[in-house]
Parts: sequence; C-alpha cells; structure tokens
Amino acid sequence: MGGDHGPSIVAPGIAQAAQSLPGVRFLLHGDAAAIEAELAKHPKARAVSEVRHCDKAIGMDEKPAQAMRRGKGSSMWNAIEALRANEAHACVSAGNTGALMAISKLILRMGADLERPAIVANWPNMKGVTTVLDVGANVQSDADQLIEFAIMGAAFHHAMHGAKRPTVGLLNVGSEDEKGHEEVREAHAILREAKLDFDYHGFVEGSDIAYGTVDVVVTDGFTGNVALKTAEGMARFFSSEIKSTLTSGPLAMLGALIASGALSKMRKRLDPSRVNGAPLLGLNGIVVKSHGGADANGFESALRVAVNLARSDFRAQIDRNLQRLTAAAAKDEAPASGQDQGAAE
Amino acid sequence: MGGDHGPSIVAPGIAQAAQSLPGVRFLLHGDAAAIEAELAKHPKARAVSEVRHCDKAIGMDEKPAQAMRRGKGSSMWNAIEALRANEAHACVSAGNTGALMAISKLILRMGADLERPAIVANWPNMKGVTTVLDVGANVQSDADQLIEFAIMGAAFHHAMHGAKRPTVGLLNVGSEDEKGHEEVREAHAILREAKLDFDYHGFVEGSDIAYGTVDVVVTDGFTGNVALKTAEGMARFFSSEIKSTLTSGPLAMLGALIASGALSKMRKRLDPSRVNGAPLLGLNGIVVKSHGGADANGFESALRVAVNLARSDFRAQIDRNLQRLTAAAAKDEAPASGQDQGAAE
Repeated sequence: MGGDHGPSIVAPGIAQAAQSLPGVRFLLHGDAAAIEAELAKHPKARAVSEVRHCDKAIGMDEKPAQAMRRGKGSSMWNAIEALRANEAHACVSAGNTGALMAISKLILRMGADLERPAIVANWPNMKGVTTVLDVGANVQSDADQLIEFAIMGAAFHHAMHGAKRPTVGLLNVGSEDEKGHEEVREAHAILREAKLDFDYHGFVEGSDIAYGTVDVVVTDGFTGNVALKTAEGMARFFSSEIKSTLTSGPLAMLGALIASGALSKMRKRLDPSRVNGAPLLGLNGIVVKSHGGADANGFESALRVAVNLARSDFRAQIDRNLQRLTAAAAKDEAPASGQDQGAAE
Repeated sequence: MGGDHGPSIVAPGIAQAAQSLPGVRFLLHGDAAAIEAELAKHPKARAVSEVRHCDKAIGMDEKPAQAMRRGKGSSMWNAIEALRANEAHACVSAGNTGALMAISKLILRMGADLERPAIVANWPNMKGVTTVLDVGANVQSDADQLIEFAIMGAAFHHAMHGAKRPTVGLLNVGSEDEKGHEEVREAHAILREAKLDFDYHGFVEGSDIAYGTVDVVVTDGFTGNVALKTAEGMARFFSSEIKSTLTSGPLAMLGALIASGALSKMRKRLDPSRVNGAPLLGLNGIVVKSHGGADANGFESALRVAVNLARSDFRAQIDRNLQRLTAAAAKDEAPASGQDQGAAE
C-alpha cells in the first residue's frame, strides 16, 4: 500500500517478476479491493499472488514511534509478521522507511550476535554496482558496528552479484593508516588482520564509490546517507543540465534527435530503477525497501533483491565470519590475560 | 611551485588576473629561474609581479608534520611568512593541502576567538554556487565548531557573491528537529535562536547541495570531505558516460557535432576551474588553496577568491557575529545563575 503509487506499480512489478523469477509466489497485504482491481489488469501477477486484506496502512509521514504504537494490523505490520511466522521468505515494501525499520526490529529482532541494522544502497558506477552501507539506519557507528557492516555488506554483494570474495573498503578522508577519526582507524586495524570471506582493501574515499574501486563501501549511517543524497542530487543536476542543453535550440534538438539511440541507451544504463531495492540488513529475516517513487521496473528490481537474498546462504556466511572474528579476538586475548596474571603474581 | 604544473599555470593565471583584477600586485615565491622563464612568456604577468627566490619547495606527498619541521625557507613557508609580515594581503598556493594548513596555522595562528580552521568548497549547483564547509580541515566537529563554520561560511559567501544575508543550512540526514547526532542537534538549536548576519534555514540534506537550497552548507570535515569527493566522482562518472555515449557510433557522433555549440556551453557551465579556489578559513590571514590540477583559468579563479576576501569586511563580519553569540549566551546564563542562587538559599 506504500510509496507514491501503491498497488498500481506492485501488480505490474509482480507480473514482470513472474517471468524473470520463476517459482516465486507473493502474499499481498493491504486493501483487497484496491489490490484485486490492479491484479485484474495483470493476469500473470494474479496467477502467483494471494491477497490478505487489512483496513489499515502506515502513512508515509508517520514517525517510527507512532507507527510502532498504532501499526498492528496494518499492511506493513502484517507483511513483516508473515515473515516471522515463516509464511514468507522475504518482505518487500515501498512504504515509510523509518516505520519499516522500527516495525521490522520490533517483530523480527536483530539477528544473533548482530548489534545494529544497516540500510544498503546499490550504486551504479563505472564498472558495475557498488554496495554501500549504512546509508541511514544509524546516526553514529563504532568500530565493531563498522566491522559488522563490512561482513553483512560482503555477504549481500556475494548473494546479489555472485562475486566469491568481494572487495571491501572503509570510507575515509584519505587512504593512509593515520587518516580519519578513531572509529574508522580501529575498524581498519581489525579488518586488516581478520581472515574473512572477503578481501579487505583498506580505506577508500568518496570518489571511489563512482569509480567502482571496491565492491562494498562501508561507512556510518550519517556519512553514508549524506553521500547517497549528495550523489542523487548531483545525478538530478546533471540530467537536468543535459536535458536543458539538448532542448536549448533547434541545432541542439536536431543533434539530440540524431544521437537519440545512443542517448536512450545511456539513460537505460543510468536508470535508478535498475538498481532499486535497499535491504535492511542485520534483522532476523529479509526485508527490502523499494524506493517510494519506483515504477514497475523498479519494483521488480526490489523483488529480485529479496529473492536473491532468500535463495542465498547469506545468513550462513555472516555467521561464519562473525565466528571467525570472535575466535580471532579470543586467541588474541588469551596470551594477554596470561601475561596479566603473570605480572600480578 | 606546487600543484601538477607549477609556474607554467601560475604565470598565465596572473596574466589573466592582471586584466580581470586591476590594481593587484603579486609576490611569487620559488625558483627564480623557473618563474622568470614563465613570466617572460606573459609580459602582463611580468608587469605586476615581483619574484622572491628560494631553493626549497614542499613536496606534494610530504606529511604535514614533516613539512612543518623542514619547511622553513621553502616557497610555501615564505609566501605565508610574507602574509604574517604584512607584505601581502593574501596567499594563494596550488601545493600540498595538509602542509599548507599546518604551516599556515603555525605561522599565522588562529583568528581571535576562533577554535578551528575550515576548508571551503565552492560547489556549482542548479542556481549558482553553494559554499560548503568544512571539507577536510577536521575529522570531527562539536556544536561550537559547527556554529563557527556557519559564521565563517556566511561571511565568505557574502564576500564572494555579495548576498547581504546569505542563507545557511546544517547538513543532516533529514529536516526534522530530532534527526541526526547530538552535535548537529545542539548547533541547530543555538543557530535557530541566534540573531546573526545571515538567515539560518535549518537542516538540509545531501541533495540540497546540488539543488542550491541554501547559500552555505555547514558540516564536519569528515562528512564534508566524503560528500565533496563523492560528488567529484559522480561528475567524472557522468562526463565519461556522456563522452562514451556521444562517441559510440557514427549517428551519435554526428548528433554531437550538430549539438556541439550547446554541449560546449554546458561544459563551460560545469567547468570546475570556474569555481576553483578553496580558502582556509579561521586563520589570522587569507590563505587560498588552488586545486593541484587546475589550469590557468582555474588559478585565476583562486586569485579572485583571495582578492575578494582581501577587499571585503569578511573578518569584521565574523567578529561581529561571534560577539553577538557571546552576548546572547551571557544573557541566557545570567538569569539561570540567579535562579540557582535562589534555590540554594
């Protein structure tokens, strides 16, 4: 029921996914009449969907705390509850992000040994797609949380793109060891020594996101959110510049017409709906946020993110890396505590 | 002597400035033979310049601490020393940024009542140019420092663009009062109440930088540096996409040729050399960093920033706002301490 368009993009998005993601079935939570009306236009979606009616929906402007208090029985709540009850393997919503995070944490709780959730952005770049996290679940992150984000981000990138050993970078203001604040330097020192299922590249800078220097860029939710929105603003600025340039006079318009094939290929390559679908990682269950303004193609992308995660060993990989980290930390501490005892004697 | 090109862009940059900034004279510090060779090609520059020879130059890769230790007598050191000795009104360098900041702080010291310096970025946007600070002088900033940045940024924007009351926004992950971490919320609460020479707009998001929502965007040096470099990366990504699109085949190339007038206007509008020149604010003196890769046009822009600052009442405006802030804080505290006494009796 959420986002700018509600069921009118969900139904055609599912119709596309019915073909691109064979074998997947959908539980649709919300106003049954509104949903059925849209499904009637898309028989392929109708064939793989079951509708669960409810009267309530969380508003796009509701504060998270308010959504948690009055959210029970809403479409968002019921969709997440179906996940907890093992009726669904993943949940996709185009609704209120803060409410989705708050209700997901409340119902699903954090995954074992994970401290904080993270929101992921999929960022088109010169080589492919960068996984950037956290882009807004937290406003501050200590070293342990940054390391968790690295582990979750690598597992996500592997599930989405198949890279056996994704490369991971820690976002900083320079690449030298002494750069940045204490939190990033501490996380850097630990990741450099850790033997995990990915290759830790070291510090990266903001420009490396667009260059595709690494597969996964790790940062705190404040910096990540500012970077993501700065890039979105720049993208809109550039596309408005190109548009106004190519409509600025008869010659410009003629040139654009002649180059229209190449220009439309570029538009497709840079289309944000191609990379839509931001998972909320760290929870006991797969929850994916679709952009509120996404169209049917974008919603299909978000469904693909959810299905790829559900079909991967994503959670097992996170657990494996967390265990290795704990084992390494225990080994480091063992001789140190022995020395302490020796000194005390 | 610094930057990618040394005197070979400084001399033509000065030649252009000799016409666009009449009345300005230049002291050039560095290798006299190399500088004179370039000045010989640009008689207009030669006419307004005096060369001060030195043998030493700070390397682009030297660490700030190293540059401070061995920098005495280098071109950078002598240029800043000339500022302290009142031989020059402003200093422009295309050299090592960390060294420039460190040596400037050492020789010039911080301005009265100012705690921390800030580096400014001039950011082209949909409406004009946004002043963004800090973009890298600090890795963390508390509320008081963010307020200082707001005051310095507003005075700089006024000096550069003439706006009587610039609008100032504080960079955050949302616009509501409760968003973000403690430092931004505290600075927000104080700026909202303060009566200063600019209009405090409230929180802004990353996308507002490109939209030109406010004249001045204030943030800590870590976030600002990441945002700036993210935007630079995006700009390079987009221009490489446009280039490869418009050379992707004969039709695309023909279209680009026909639209070339409009496209070259766009390139000029988005040319980073147009906004080159990042002042290091907060010091006892005007120091401007020119981008290491800037061409003669870019160097002329950096000279213009220095001259505009030197000819403005920039420093007086900062002092006026700092005094108002101190007076307001003293007034707030007075009745509070009165009440405390009452309660103690």
